[in-house]
Amino acid sequence: MSRVYNFGAGPATMPLEVLEEAQKNLVDFKGHGLSIMEASHRSKMYDEVHNEALFLIKELYKVPQDFDVLFLQGGASTQFAMVPMNLSQGGRVEYADTGSWSSKAIKEAKILNLDVNIVASSKESGYDKIPSTIDFSDDADYAYITSNNTIYGTQYKTFPTTKAPLVIDASSDIFSYPIDWSKADLLFAGAQKNAGPSGVTIVIIKKELQDRVKENIPSMFRYKTHAEKNSLYNTPPTFGIYMLSLIMKWMKREGGIEEIAKINAKKAAILYDTIDNSQGFFVGHAQKDSRSLMNVSFNIKDKDAALESELVELAAKNGMIGLKGHRSIGGLRASIYNAMSIEGVKALADLMQDFAAKKA
Amino acid sequence: MSRVYNFGAGPATMPLEVLEEAQKNLVDFKGHGLSIMEASHRSKMYDEVHNEALFLIKELYKVPQDFDVLFLQGGASTQFAMVPMNLSQGGRVEYADTGSWSSKAIKEAKILNLDVNIVASSKESGYDKIPSTIDFSDDADYAYITSNNTIYGTQYKTFPTTKAPLVIDASSDIFSYPIDWSKADLLFAGAQKNAGPSGVTIVIIKKELQDRVKENIPSMFRYKTHAEKNSLYNTPPTFGIYMLSLIMKWMKREGGIEEIAKINAKKAAILYDTIDNSQGFFVGHAQKDSRSLMNVSFNIKDKDAALESELVELAAKNGMIGLKGHRSIGGLRASIYNAMSIEGVKALADLMQDFAAKKA
Repeated sequence: MSRVYNFGAGPATMPLEVLEEAQKNLVDFKGHGLSIMEASHRSKMYDEVHNEALFLIKELYKVPQDFDVLFLQGGASTQFAMVPMNLSQGGRVEYADTGSWSSKAIKEAKILNLDVNIVASSKESGYDKIPSTIDFSDDADYAYITSNNTIYGTQYKTFPTTKAPLVIDASSDIFSYPIDWSKADLLFAGAQKNAGPSGVTIVIIKKELQDRVKENIPSMFRYKTHAEKNSLYNTPPTFGIYMLSLIMKWMKREGGIEEIAKINAKKAAILYDTIDNSQGFFVGHAQKDSRSLMNVSFNIKDKDAALESELVELAAKNGMIGLKGHRSIGGLRASIYNAMSIEGVKALADLMQDFAAKKA
Repeated sequence: MSRVYNFGAGPATMPLEVLEEAQKNLVDFKGHGLSIMEASHRSKMYDEVHNEALFLIKELYKVPQDFDVLFLQGGASTQFAMVPMNLSQGGRVEYADTGSWSSKAIKEAKILNLDVNIVASSKESGYDKIPSTIDFSDDADYAYITSNNTIYGTQYKTFPTTKAPLVIDASSDIFSYPIDWSKADLLFAGAQKNAGPSGVTIVIIKKELQDRVKENIPSMFRYKTHAEKNSLYNTPPTFGIYMLSLIMKWMKREGGIEEIAKINAKKAAILYDTIDNSQGFFVGHAQKDSRSLMNVSFNIKDKDAALESELVELAAKNGMIGLKGHRSIGGLRASIYNAMSIEGVKALADLMQDFAAKKA
């Protein structure tokens, strides 16, 4: 079979040229006589990969000097606990609830017996939007948002301005547009959507926030531990970080995050236009002003599950996979992260238009 | 450069045939049109890999029915915290201190304000042995040992018999010999020495122990969370688990863990004989009855650092890398995990003998 267009929500498609470079070097890394997977994390060979990955993140994402970039493990689910364990100061912590992942983050703060305040929620309307008003208290220990909601296909167009430190779960839109760092204090993401394979977590945290952590927090769960050791306190997921470094280099070749953001906007427009021009055959889940550029979630009119399945199967036969919507809302979802090509998106749009014409 | 013999302590050498199979499938996994790295962790394609890895661990390691095998992240360093967070019942927890990793585990239990009792230690003699007497209390919340001490090259020949649940950090000797499961209750290891790349943690835990965990422990840090979801509660490190599955298949082709244990004993004997027959030129760090079959730590007589460096460099010129001892004890260390061939060990022994003959 030739290469498919993978619209899966994550782990997700990667640039073919990145996979080919990894393949070429997999057994013998650049003539060193061993795989990068076999190299000690204290070796010069790995050190170069590690530091290049960190350097490129700082360069491409324009991370300010007063932030550290960390490579951790355990994904966003682990951050749901680490954020309160590190940032809570015994006061109130505040969350905006915009979907499943926000809800899970809130649950973990409650498990830790914190005083949790949900300042805004779009739950009642099926998480179809980012609430228009989100008022975080100035004196909260932190304010927490999920920048992109993978399941529902909603995304913040701008971050709220807060006095409290703003924590952003950017798992499904990291590196897809430039960040206004004047608003952000801690941004984290699992790598498996826009930055590499699963098993690497990227945390970008303001240095001053690292000192809040209390003495009874285990070493591995303290951001400070990892910042002080350049993310080499323990053995990092070396191969995943290598893949991430290749993705960063690819992003640079593509013209950087500003250029990638423009392409992302074009890709999303192709699919949303297809939905909007389908005379009601396709129905987008998100309200228009909250639409995600990363995950396009939609139904077929009357939520016709049989037709939806038929389209998912037809797409798979045509080499387009991963389009089944999340079980919580059904329908279809096209995840169009950085590495999804405009050709892939056009192929899907064509298929959708043909299908609508036949079935409408 | 042709393939080196990698004696590094971890991440460590892997079987060449495993790397070659991974390379072949890296861009297009078995004709599916995408890499295993790009596959959803909820896809059939990944599910087969995941379940095969779990199945093969249970089969090869003869894991009893009343245990679960879990794939986690964060390495042994995270387990140092998770063990007390899950198993402590407010009583005393007991540790045997046989090296740096035991000490770090003890430190984390103390950070959590537990009543920690160190029942035995070989610290005073430079961690050169496993203490001959280790008496864990029957009523301890758990008893904790490090089965192999990577830095000092010591290893338990048999596990202590305990009434309290026995926790074993087997990071550097998992899958290298058959386990007497009647003695063990929780065994964990980072994959990066004997089981795959870094970024995957294997936890093998008795089911009944999972119910001890208290309500204020975050979901990701509870063994039960992962056991209930077949290690798919969150996105697992899919590529690492794929590599682990290939290592397991390789172990099966080698004749299983019983056969591998025999080869490991032969490999270690070659190096220890070289040390013992060097008329004092080489001095093993570990006392003879505590010698590790995985890590052979030794000095040159009078701890001659210049000669030691010379030998490390000579070895590197001859394609044998990773031999520098840990900074805490200096000298040399040959890590000879499952995937190190007997040919590699013989090549090193020959080099050592030649060097001793020239320099003695």
